[in-house]
Amino acid sequence: MVQSKLTDSAPNEEMIIATQLAKGQREISVGEFFAKNRHLLGFDNKKKALLTVVKEAVDNSLDACEEARILPEIIVEIIDMGNERYRIIVEDNGPGIVKKQVPRIFAKLLYGSKFHKLRMSRGQQGIGISAAVMYGQLTTGRPAKILTKIHSSKPAYACELKIDTHKNEPEIGSDEEKEWNKEHGTRVEIDIEATYLKGSQSVDEYLKQTAITNPHATIIYTNPKAEQVIFARVANELPKLPTEIQPHLYGVELGVLMDMLKRTESRTLQAFLTSEFTRVGAGTAKQICENAALLQSMKPREITRELAEKLMEGVKKTRLIAPPTDCLSPIGAEQLESGLKKEVGAEFYCSTTRPPAIYRGYPFIIEAALAYGGQQSAEEQAHILRYANRVPLLYQQSACASFKSITQTAWRNYGISQPQNALPVGQLTIVLHIASVWVPFTSESKEAIAHYPEIIKEMKLALQDCGRKLAMYVHKKARIKDAQERANIFERYIPEVADSLAQLSGEKKENIQEALLKMLSKPEIQAQVAMPPEEDIYKLDTRQEEQDE
Amino acid sequence: MVQSKLTDSAPNEEMIIATQLAKGQREISVGEFFAKNRHLLGFDNKKKALLTVVKEAVDNSLDACEEARILPEIIVEIIDMGNERYRIIVEDNGPGIVKKQVPRIFAKLLYGSKFHKLRMSRGQQGIGISAAVMYGQLTTGRPAKILTKIHSSKPAYACELKIDTHKNEPEIGSDEEKEWNKEHGTRVEIDIEATYLKGSQSVDEYLKQTAITNPHATIIYTNPKAEQVIFARVANELPKLPTEIQPHLYGVELGVLMDMLKRTESRTLQAFLTSEFTRVGAGTAKQICENAALLQSMKPREITRELAEKLMEGVKKTRLIAPPTDCLSPIGAEQLESGLKKEVGAEFYCSTTRPPAIYRGYPFIIEAALAYGGQQSAEEQAHILRYANRVPLLYQQSACASFKSITQTAWRNYGISQPQNALPVGQLTIVLHIASVWVPFTSESKEAIAHYPEIIKEMKLALQDCGRKLAMYVHKKARIKDAQERANIFERYIPEVADSLAQLSGEKKENIQEALLKMLSKPEIQAQVAMPPEEDIYKLDTRQEEQDE
Repeated sequence: MVQSKLTDSAPNEEMIIATQLAKGQREISVGEFFAKNRHLLGFDNKKKALLTVVKEAVDNSLDACEEARILPEIIVEIIDMGNERYRIIVEDNGPGIVKKQVPRIFAKLLYGSKFHKLRMSRGQQGIGISAAVMYGQLTTGRPAKILTKIHSSKPAYACELKIDTHKNEPEIGSDEEKEWNKEHGTRVEIDIEATYLKGSQSVDEYLKQTAITNPHATIIYTNPKAEQVIFARVANELPKLPTEIQPHLYGVELGVLMDMLKRTESRTLQAFLTSEFTRVGAGTAKQICENAALLQSMKPREITRELAEKLMEGVKKTRLIAPPTDCLSPIGAEQLESGLKKEVGAEFYCSTTRPPAIYRGYPFIIEAALAYGGQQSAEEQAHILRYANRVPLLYQQSACASFKSITQTAWRNYGISQPQNALPVGQLTIVLHIASVWVPFTSESKEAIAHYPEIIKEMKLALQDCGRKLAMYVHKKARIKDAQERANIFERYIPEVADSLAQLSGEKKENIQEALLKMLSKPEIQAQVAMPPEEDIYKLDTRQEEQDE
Repeated sequence: MVQSKLTDSAPNEEMIIATQLAKGQREISVGEFFAKNRHLLGFDNKKKALLTVVKEAVDNSLDACEEARILPEIIVEIIDMGNERYRIIVEDNGPGIVKKQVPRIFAKLLYGSKFHKLRMSRGQQGIGISAAVMYGQLTTGRPAKILTKIHSSKPAYACELKIDTHKNEPEIGSDEEKEWNKEHGTRVEIDIEATYLKGSQSVDEYLKQTAITNPHATIIYTNPKAEQVIFARVANELPKLPTEIQPHLYGVELGVLMDMLKRTESRTLQAFLTSEFTRVGAGTAKQICENAALLQSMKPREITRELAEKLMEGVKKTRLIAPPTDCLSPIGAEQLESGLKKEVGAEFYCSTTRPPAIYRGYPFIIEAALAYGGQQSAEEQAHILRYANRVPLLYQQSACASFKSITQTAWRNYGISQPQNALPVGQLTIVLHIASVWVPFTSESKEAIAHYPEIIKEMKLALQDCGRKLAMYVHKKARIKDAQERANIFERYIPEVADSLAQLSGEKKENIQEALLKMLSKPEIQAQVAMPPEEDIYKLDTRQEEQDE
C-alpha cells in the first residue's frame, strides 16, 4: 500500500505509517501469554514436564495439609498410557476444596491464596497447578479430573476442567456430587505428553528428596513401571506453622511505599508505620519520623514523592529490629545433616543455619550443609542439592543463585580443589536451602533462585561457615595421614638401622630391631614423629574469600 | 478459632477448614504479579537494571525503524543523578506513536503488536518497556516521560506516565502537544535506581555488540561520565523486512490445533488447513486428510478430540515442505564473521548458517561463528557471544541453550581442550545466533534461551559445522609447527655433522656446513623433513561427537 512520506505537507492520516502500526496493538491475555510461553512454566521438554506436574500437585497437597494441621499422606501414581502419554494422579488427605473455588484454583492462571500473604509456603504464585492443567490439555486435548471432599459428612465434588486460554477462565466439562470413601482430601488427575526416565532430575529423585526434607509426610509412589515405593513418615509432628507477617521496612522500594501510603486506611503516618510493617512499635515510628523530619501526625495522603523519599532516608537512619522468625520454618541444621546422612555415605558432615536476613522487605533464612569424603568420587565435581521452602530444585542448576554462590566461594581455602569459575572438585556434596516468605525464582517454573545480592551474600556466608568446619577436618585428616607416612618410613628403615647397629655393637640384630620397634611405639616418640616440619604446607589462599562479581 | 473436626457429624459450614481457606483465594493482577516478581523481568540487581532499560528502549527503536523502513539513528544518554539514580534517555528517528496508543504501550503490561504475529522482531511479548517504566516508578517514584511525533506536519505529543499495578492500566500524569524540531520519532526518559559499571555485561558492551549485528544503525551514546561514543552505520541498506507467516503444522500441539479448529472461520477442514498454516496447498491438504482418514469437506467444529488426534497422526505421515525463510532475517555467515573480526583479533575465523528448522510450529535459523588463536588467551575458557534476533544476550550465560549446546559439544575432536561438562579452554571465541518468529526465553527478561530439544540440536549441528573447519586449521597448524621443529633440529645439528664429516673427509668444515644448509633448503628435502612420523598423533576422540543429555 502507498504510504505517506513522513514529511509530506498534507498527509492522509490513514496513510501515516504510525497509524498503520497502531492497528496491530492489542491486549494479550494472561492465558495466551503462558500458553505460548509454556517454557516459562517448566514445560519446555517432556522429561521436565512430568516432574513439573507432579511437583505442583504434591507441593499443593503438602501446603494444604500443613495449613489444616493434618499429617500428610500423599499418593502419587503415574500410569504409562503409551505413545508418550502419561496419566498423573495425586491424591492427598488434606482439607479438600470448596466446590465454588475448584474451577478457578485448577483452571485459572494467577489465582490463589498465597500471593498476597507474606508467609512461607511452597506454592506462592497462583499459577502452578493451572499451568499443569493447561499443559495437559495443550498436549493431549484432555480435561483434568478433580475429586475433592471437605468433610466426612458431605458428598465429594467431582468435575472435569479445561482452561479457556483466551479469557483465562475455567471451562467445566461436567460436574457432579458423588460418594467417596475417603473422609476428606483432594485427588487430581491430569493426562500429559511426557517422557519418563529414572535417575537425576527425575520424578523419583524429586519424591525421594521431598521425603527427606518433609519427614512428617508419608508418600506412596507408583511409577510408570507399576513399581511401588513407600516413603513412610519418620516424624509424627508437623513442622511449626509459619505465621503471616507484614513487610519489613528494610529494603522496601520507594514506589511500594508510595503505593501503600496511597491505599492505607491509617489516618496518620505514625499509625501507618506501626500497623503496616512488622517490628515497628510506637517508639520506632517516632524515631523514623524524627530522622525523616516529618510529623507523626501527617496524613498518609499528604505525603508526596519528595516527602516519601525523606521518609525512606529516615528509615535508613533508624535502627530496626530484625523480623520475627516465626514467619519462617527452616529445616534446621540437625535435620539437614541427618537428611544428608541418609542421602550420602561420607566421613564428615557439618551444617549451619544463618540468622534471618531481608531482601526487599522480605525475610529469609539460608541453611547449608556439607558431606565430605567417604564413598564419594574424588574425580567428580561437587554434587549440589538445592532447596527452596523445603522443595527440591532439580533443574537449571547453573542458573541458580546457589550455584553462583558456590562457584564464587574459594574452596581451596578449605582444602578442596576448584578450577576457575567452576564447581569445586572432590568428594563433596553441598546442600543449600532458602526459606522465605517470598522466594524469588528466575522464572515462573520455580527451578532456580534469582540473583538478589542479599541472598547470594547470605549463601556465601553459610558456605563459609561450613567451609571452615570442613577445613579443620580436612587439615587434621591430612596431618594424621602425613604422620602415618612418616611413621611408616621409620618402620621401614628399622631393619637397616638394626643391621648397622648390630655390626657396630656386636649385638644380635633381632634384639636391636625389637628394641627399636618398642621405642617407636612409645607415645612420646609417636608424638615426635607426628610433628610436621616447620613449614606449614597448607598456606591459605591469599585471594580474598569472597571473589567480586 | 475453634474449627470443626473434619469428621464431626453435623459441622458448622463456616467452621470447616476448607471454608476458612477459601476466603483467602483471589485473583492476582498481572501488574501486581510482575511488580512483586521484578526479577523475572531483568531487574534483580542494579547493574543489570540499567542494561535492561536501555535494551528494551533500543530494541523497540530498532524494530520500529525497520518496520517503517527508516535507517535508524538512535541517541542513548545516561545521566548520573547521584545517589544511585540514573536518568536514561533513548531517542530515535522512527515513525513515532499515535497519541491514543502511547499510554498503553508504555504503561500497560501484556500490551503490544508483535505477540500475535509470527514474524521475527526483537520485542515480542508486550512487556519490556512497560516493565522498565514500572521499575523506574518502583525505585524512584517518578513517572516516565514520553515525547513522540508521527509526521513533520503534526505537533509532537508529550506525556508523563505511571502504571497502576493493581489494575494494570496507565496513569497519565500530564500531557500536552508541543513543538519538536525533529521530523518524526520517539523519545523515552526514565529515572531508575541502578549501578553503572563498564566492562562485560555493561550497557557499553551491549551497545557495542548491537552496533556489530546492526550495521545499518547509527547509535550515539553518552555514558554517565559524559563521554560520547558514536557507532556510525557502515551499511546504507536496511535488512530485508521479514514477512509475517502462519504457523507450520510440524510441531503444533494437539491442544493448539483443537483451539484453532474451534475458532476458525473456515467452513471445511481443507480450507482450514490451507488458510491457517504455511506451506499447505490444496495438494498437501488432500494428502493430510487421506493420511488421517478424514473427509476434506468436514466442518471444523465437527472435529472432536479423537478426530483431532487422527488429524495430527495424518500430519505426521505427510511430507511437509519447510517453511518459507522470508519470515526470518538471519545475520548472514559473512556478516557474522566480519562482525567477529571487529571484535576479536584472531588468526582463523569461520562461520555457518544452518537451514531453517522448526520447533512447535515456529521456524528458526541458527548461525554460528568461531574465532581461533591470535591475541586470545590460551589459559582462559572460550569466550561466548550470544544473540537472539540480532539482540546481544549478556546475562545468564549458563542458563542459556547456547551454553548447554557448547558444553555438550566434544571440542577435543577439533583440537581444543575441554574439561568435563564445561566450556572448552583455549584461544577461542564462539558466536551463536538464533533468528526466529518466536524466540523462547527462560524468563520474561529475555536473557537466556529456553532448552527446547530442537533448538539445542540445531545449535550443536552449527557448532560441529564450524568445529570441523576449525579442526582442519588446528591440525594443519600443528603439522606445520612440528615440521618447523624438525627442521630446526636438523639445522641445529648441522655444525656437528659438518665437523665430523670434515674430520672424516679432510674437507673444510665451513664448506661442508654451507653445502648441508643449501641441501636442507631444497624443496624436496623440506618436504621430507616436514613428513610426520607414521603414527598419527592426533587421534580423534573416540566418544561420540554428540554427548547424551
